[in-house]
Amino acid sequence: MTKIIELEEIKNEIEKIDLIPLIEKGFIEYSKGNVVVPPVGELLFHDPPGDVHIKYGAINNDDYYVVKIASGFSQNPKLYGISPLQGLMLLFNQKTGQPISILLDQGYLTNVRTAVAGTISAKYLAPKNVKQIGIVGTGSQARIQLKYLKSVTNCKDVIVWGRSKEKLESYKNDMTNIGYNIKTTTNMEDITSSSNLIVTTTSANQSLLKVDQIQKGTHITAMGSDTIEKRELDPNIFQIADLVIVDSISQSKQRGEVFHALKADCIKEEQLIELGKMIENKKYHRSSDDQITIADLTGVAIQDIQIAKAVYQGIINWQ
Amino acid sequence: MTKIIELEEIKNEIEKIDLIPLIEKGFIEYSKGNVVVPPVGELLFHDPPGDVHIKYGAINNDDYYVVKIASGFSQNPKLYGISPLQGLMLLFNQKTGQPISILLDQGYLTNVRTAVAGTISAKYLAPKNVKQIGIVGTGSQARIQLKYLKSVTNCKDVIVWGRSKEKLESYKNDMTNIGYNIKTTTNMEDITSSSNLIVTTTSANQSLLKVDQIQKGTHITAMGSDTIEKRELDPNIFQIADLVIVDSISQSKQRGEVFHALKADCIKEEQLIELGKMIENKKYHRSSDDQITIADLTGVAIQDIQIAKAVYQGIINWQ
Repeated sequence: MTKIIELEEIKNEIEKIDLIPLIEKGFIEYSKGNVVVPPVGELLFHDPPGDVHIKYGAINNDDYYVVKIASGFSQNPKLYGISPLQGLMLLFNQKTGQPISILLDQGYLTNVRTAVAGTISAKYLAPKNVKQIGIVGTGSQARIQLKYLKSVTNCKDVIVWGRSKEKLESYKNDMTNIGYNIKTTTNMEDITSSSNLIVTTTSANQSLLKVDQIQKGTHITAMGSDTIEKRELDPNIFQIADLVIVDSISQSKQRGEVFHALKADCIKEEQLIELGKMIENKKYHRSSDDQITIADLTGVAIQDIQIAKAVYQGIINWQ
Repeated sequence: MTKIIELEEIKNEIEKIDLIPLIEKGFIEYSKGNVVVPPVGELLFHDPPGDVHIKYGAINNDDYYVVKIASGFSQNPKLYGISPLQGLMLLFNQKTGQPISILLDQGYLTNVRTAVAGTISAKYLAPKNVKQIGIVGTGSQARIQLKYLKSVTNCKDVIVWGRSKEKLESYKNDMTNIGYNIKTTTNMEDITSSSNLIVTTTSANQSLLKVDQIQKGTHITAMGSDTIEKRELDPNIFQIADLVIVDSISQSKQRGEVFHALKADCIKEEQLIELGKMIENKKYHRSSDDQITIADLTGVAIQDIQIAKAVYQGIINWQ
């Protein structure tokens, strides 16, 4: 029997899982070449606009393989009053092909595993003394980032950038409730001049952060862009970066910020270091308060494999 | 709420659906360019051997998009006493990304839609007078083909080829029960010398049918090969064929019999005619009893779209 798991059960289970070591282990195995992750499948719709990503893969000789379908339909809230992020994860038996479990997560696990990858990036790359966290965007990823960043930085001062004053206020209210001091701005300069840990979370199609705005000692985690079209960073920022980390080199050549920076000749492939390799090797961690570092995350199926397995196993162990 | 549909309900519903026009319409839309079908996603396992195919796509401006995960683990019957074919189909809302229905079909709908594509090929390409049907293989596709061929030919005389006498006997028993006269053989020559409608359904990795065995007036539907490795036909057969039909030109350049024939220079891309184009144009139907015709089917997501939609809509209309 295929075990169907609903969102509420998933949300309960996630609170019991130590996610950072789980996802770190996944990235390490991936960068060692022990994980099969074929290129991302993609479907794009235009009316209304939506992109669907199919990520799938398996750890060699594991019990499972995982397929994740996740979509972003940006007009969902306006048109239908529902979340832009939708989707589900599927866990299959690697020895027989049988579907073991369907996790009806409505995009929630994608949100969580993405936030955890951002947290891992900050753990190794953010300055020791984070004076202020700069968040670009006011959506669900901009929120969940702060929840998970608590485990790697004590900084509670946040400035958030958005275009809509209403959404900024709503963000401020919600994040104040979980213990942060929130300032809001519609001017990106306010973010870059005051924050040395910046997380970008929008689905913008053009550069939001400019190269001349970036201060020495800044770490940027760029997680909004996961297609050819989307981008949040001026590619010239890559020219002044001391370290550029990507979750997947093969994927970042095809989508995300690095894809644009490579095309613009602002970085060379040899400079890219994979997250899983960085975690294990201190020479790729931040080594001074002056460095400019970037983590460009497009999301890799190994994150989905790790989180889907952990949720499923946690739930059946309780039953 | 996502509607979960179990196998038994799917099997009941399928009997109520007029599948041939449904799948024909899908192929016609596909060949007109009205369907988005990205390249097939694939995961290959080795211990035990298994291949997983992820097929997905959407009709432009339709209400749905579909993702199908289907796998073949050939040692399933021997190792675990279960079917080699496993999988499920997922129906999503094309406007919001929400999962509408999960069809836990265990590969059954893939089997049906594949058999229907074979039936459509026979409808337009088999000789008017089918003297004997030759079936290559004794598995589930070899069985279901006969069930659906009833709707396009009156011929009830069948010869089946297999390697295992036990499986041949089991096939003979089962197919005799649905009204066929079955002869069995382990010698391919017996098939090619007596049958003018041949359907190949194995997962062989080398040619089973040789060019010098093929008689004038034969139609061959090759449906076993759907990867780079698998093949059932000597590529030289394509050199003596008068008509070569494929379900998808783009896909057949990457997998299946035509992939091998193109590589061996036994056919040129310009000679390939898509099934959806053939259906609509009489000049690509069989026009004489002497022609040798081939339909090479690798399976296209439009078949999955059509069958998943029809089953879901049929079931909710009853409720």
